[in-house]
Amino acid sequence: MLIEEPKSKIDKIRQRIYIVIYGTNTKAGKIFDIFLLIFILLSVLAVMLESVQYIDEQYHAFLIAAEWFFTILFSIEYILRIFSTKKPWKYIFSFYGIIDFLAILPMYLSFFFTGSNLLGSIRALRLLRLFRVLKLANFIGEATNLKAALKASRAKIIVFLFTVLIIAMVVGTLMYLIEGPESGYTSIPRGIYWTVVTLTTVGFGDIYPQTALGQFLAMFVMITGYGIIAVPTGIVSAEFAKQKGNKTKSNPEKTNIACPVCNTEIHNENASYCYECGSKLKV
Amino acid sequence: MLIEEPKSKIDKIRQRIYIVIYGTNTKAGKIFDIFLLIFILLSVLAVMLESVQYIDEQYHAFLIAAEWFFTILFSIEYILRIFSTKKPWKYIFSFYGIIDFLAILPMYLSFFFTGSNLLGSIRALRLLRLFRVLKLANFIGEATNLKAALKASRAKIIVFLFTVLIIAMVVGTLMYLIEGPESGYTSIPRGIYWTVVTLTTVGFGDIYPQTALGQFLAMFVMITGYGIIAVPTGIVSAEFAKQKGNKTKSNPEKTNIACPVCNTEIHNENASYCYECGSKLKV
Amino acid sequence: MLIEEPKSKIDKIRQRIYIVIYGTNTKAGKIFDIFLLIFILLSVLAVMLESVQYIDEQYHAFLIAAEWFFTILFSIEYILRIFSTKKPWKYIFSFYGIIDFLAILPMYLSFFFTGSNLLGSIRALRLLRLFRVLKLANFIGEATNLKAALKASRAKIIVFLFTVLIIAMVVGTLMYLIEGPESGYTSIPRGIYWTVVTLTTVGFGDIYPQTALGQFLAMFVMITGYGIIAVPTGIVSAEFAKQKGNKTKSNPEKTNIACPVCNTEIHNENASYCYECGSKLKV
Amino acid sequence: MLIEEPKSKIDKIRQRIYIVIYGTNTKAGKIFDIFLLIFILLSVLAVMLESVQYIDEQYHAFLIAAEWFFTILFSIEYILRIFSTKKPWKYIFSFYGIIDFLAILPMYLSFFFTGSNLLGSIRALRLLRLFRVLKLANFIGEATNLKAALKASRAKIIVFLFTVLIIAMVVGTLMYLIEGPESGYTSIPRGIYWTVVTLTTVGFGDIYPQTALGQFLAMFVMITGYGIIAVPTGIVSAEFAKQKGNKTKSNPEKTNIACPVCNTEIHNENASYCYECGSKLKV
Repeated sequence: MLIEEPKSKIDKIRQRIYIVIYGTNTKAGKIFDIFLLIFILLSVLAVMLESVQYIDEQYHAFLIAAEWFFTILFSIEYILRIFSTKKPWKYIFSFYGIIDFLAILPMYLSFFFTGSNLLGSIRALRLLRLFRVLKLANFIGEATNLKAALKASRAKIIVFLFTVLIIAMVVGTLMYLIEGPESGYTSIPRGIYWTVVTLTTVGFGDIYPQTALGQFLAMFVMITGYGIIAVPTGIVSAEFAKQKGNKTKSNPEKTNIACPVCNTEIHNENASYCYECGSKLKV
Repeated sequence: MLIEEPKSKIDKIRQRIYIVIYGTNTKAGKIFDIFLLIFILLSVLAVMLESVQYIDEQYHAFLIAAEWFFTILFSIEYILRIFSTKKPWKYIFSFYGIIDFLAILPMYLSFFFTGSNLLGSIRALRLLRLFRVLKLANFIGEATNLKAALKASRAKIIVFLFTVLIIAMVVGTLMYLIEGPESGYTSIPRGIYWTVVTLTTVGFGDIYPQTALGQFLAMFVMITGYGIIAVPTGIVSAEFAKQKGNKTKSNPEKTNIACPVCNTEIHNENASYCYECGSKLKV
Repeated sequence: MLIEEPKSKIDKIRQRIYIVIYGTNTKAGKIFDIFLLIFILLSVLAVMLESVQYIDEQYHAFLIAAEWFFTILFSIEYILRIFSTKKPWKYIFSFYGIIDFLAILPMYLSFFFTGSNLLGSIRALRLLRLFRVLKLANFIGEATNLKAALKASRAKIIVFLFTVLIIAMVVGTLMYLIEGPESGYTSIPRGIYWTVVTLTTVGFGDIYPQTALGQFLAMFVMITGYGIIAVPTGIVSAEFAKQKGNKTKSNPEKTNIACPVCNTEIHNENASYCYECGSKLKV
Repeated sequence: MLIEEPKSKIDKIRQRIYIVIYGTNTKAGKIFDIFLLIFILLSVLAVMLESVQYIDEQYHAFLIAAEWFFTILFSIEYILRIFSTKKPWKYIFSFYGIIDFLAILPMYLSFFFTGSNLLGSIRALRLLRLFRVLKLANFIGEATNLKAALKASRAKIIVFLFTVLIIAMVVGTLMYLIEGPESGYTSIPRGIYWTVVTLTTVGFGDIYPQTALGQFLAMFVMITGYGIIAVPTGIVSAEFAKQKGNKTKSNPEKTNIACPVCNTEIHNENASYCYECGSKLKV
């Protein structure tokens, strides 16, 4: 088995950048991650403050400057991520790659569409990196458990959601016919909207039944909603209860670095080769 | 055991139609089912759009035409279903048979009652066929599990609902007496309506207590509602947890065709005779 | 062991009345119970309709007459219940005895206090008898299970409620100080009322925060409420799950008659003597 | 092992005060605790009533007097607590010590800041002492169970809350862009506030979507909220179910006294020496 070794100077630079950006258990990687999170938080805050009218009026220039600062910073980071990994396309179309791209896009779009920079709040999604940075075994373990529980009960939840939607359609139509536009049920889609608001026990109160018959049907819908709230809870509870036996503590000290070639996360501390593509790991 | 064989030409046609309409695992049957679902979705969409005033004003003629198109299509399908099965009355009074009939009724009623065509949204119920069409083992299996869990906890749920209704009556009366018509509690039934809205944690806010005593009682009702929300959840959760042992994966490749004589769904792939009426199956 | 036998004629009448009123498994007792439930439902309906202004205006005389009819009927039943049982005081101060008395009281009070007849809706509580009339083993069994589950988790629930109340007091005060009377938080008790409305996810919307700080605290309260909704559910779910092993089906054919002396309900079909007081049972 | 014995007269007084104030299983200690709880309740009530305008207008002088009375009383208690324990700093910076200090602070602050006495409602936190006073084994046991269940699922809950916050940020931004200021979504933070109100199914109705697109997104958010309400419930339910095996009834008669030196609570009835600092216990 032949492993290609870095030869040129550019390859060495690429490798160093890679360790800083993708690595989370080297000192440089840790510092990089912490600064990245702080910058993400600040950039989201800037977008939020810009949307508040009286703050924007006073500090508009400063906030725009801050946004450009963060956008350029994140753009450099994005380019370095593509440059330093050996399979750039894999990164670009990965979950985090798409989020990273969406995070810098709005500001550039604001040249063409006014106000599109406010979409920048989508950067909040980048905070999902926090999970990788925290690197705490039980946090990652728990997230996996949550995911497994949700995945195991996926079919049950789809059946459930589908039933809820059919109920919403039928009840929405009936409410539209019973109450009519005077009570705010101006169309069947609005009736469906009201039914979902009621079934989920949110109850905004922007639309509500005013006839005796409508209120009677509403009571029926509410008690049904109250009853079926039990179904997803029951599904997920049972799933969690089932998992308790299988749960195994993962090692908190495990190496949490991505493979420089195929970008697969490596979980085995002593791994020397990527288990996906077989290329040598340089930790 | 003597099995009657199709003899006349009309019997052969009937049999072919049967396989297309009722069968879900022949190629023709699959194509038919997919088109049927698309037509149901489009017809429901047409009714919904018609109810939205500004869309209806612009495309009224087109939407009415679409509705008539779907109604005639579904009417033909309904007649063919009756024609092709050997026990038409069983189909007519079956769950799906009644839904299929209700789905075509509103349009014909619109000759006599203006606006009754809007009831056409009831066609959404036909989407329940989706479960049969999907034919995916775990979907069907999960639906059965859900049904079993709900059935097993039926008695508990009835006791629970009954208790909720008695609480609603007593609290509704008290709120009517405490708050009076000025706060919107114009009658005891409205008080009961408010109590159900509150107990189920929907809280529209169309009626709310305004006196100190009324607010105190409301707090009591809300905390009670918060507490008893636990009861149906607990019941269903326990039921799901119980089922985990018994759960057996059903065969995803099983034949999902109905008996041509008695309309019973046949689940055994290798079945040659209907287990209900003993008539020969022609798959 | 000496058992006193009925001697006088009045004792025989008393005994017959007892079997009709208290017995639920004799033919006469069953008919009596069904009529009683119908009368209770009708009497509750009469009170409800009387509270609806436009119905009351049209049928006032009829509704008042109906209420008097039911009140006199229930009064006779109440007197007969006291007369026919051997330990009248035990009945009078029993759960059902008090409800039966409260059910006839409002109408007589209406001589002194106008409108007190509307309290008659409290008769709805008499519908609790339904559980005894239904006599179906699993209904009674399930009610017992529900009761047992709630009893077992009583201490946990009290701790929980107490914690919720302390949170409500502290948050209510903070909201009153932050938002002030302009936003509807006119006093600390109203702040507490709002906190309970929010923590229980009811959310009427009659009072809501309008300052940025208030909304921030509200978000915190809501997420807390969302989190702690899990606590009572978890408690009751665990309790139900625990019970599944112990659950034993009770006999659906069991004799459900009360002892004529001490009013204890007898559950053993073949019992000849009351297990509480030893007096002979005359079924 | 040499144990220091109280020698001076002041030490004897200190010891007697200690037993009354900290002890909960001596007669004097019990009476003290009950009076303390009554005074706490009355003082909280006084603050609440003062905040109600029309009550304050009539009884202002009386309520202020009552507050001063309780503040001085609690101040004396606070000083005696510091005086009687051997490690005063440990008490001062303990959970209860800080609450006790915060409970007396607002009234003294009212010399400098008008209205700060209304913060006095924070005294409600002192009611947490109730748990120690009740001293009932199952109450304490259950509180421990609750705490253990919440602690065990802490990591899962943090992952969950974090996910909810990221959803709120992204959805809040989208709603702000879709609906705009006309519908009440005047800024991104307000959009986030609305998303939290909706996801938690509180639904005040102060802000609600008015465009078709906004209502469609709202429906999506609500159904999501309905689905994820299952997650914390499932987590805690599973935790409670797990605990059922480990649960051991603690002894209701156990000595519930704090060590006079280091203030550690002693749970072993027969303990003669504090297990923390080794000083002799004088029960």
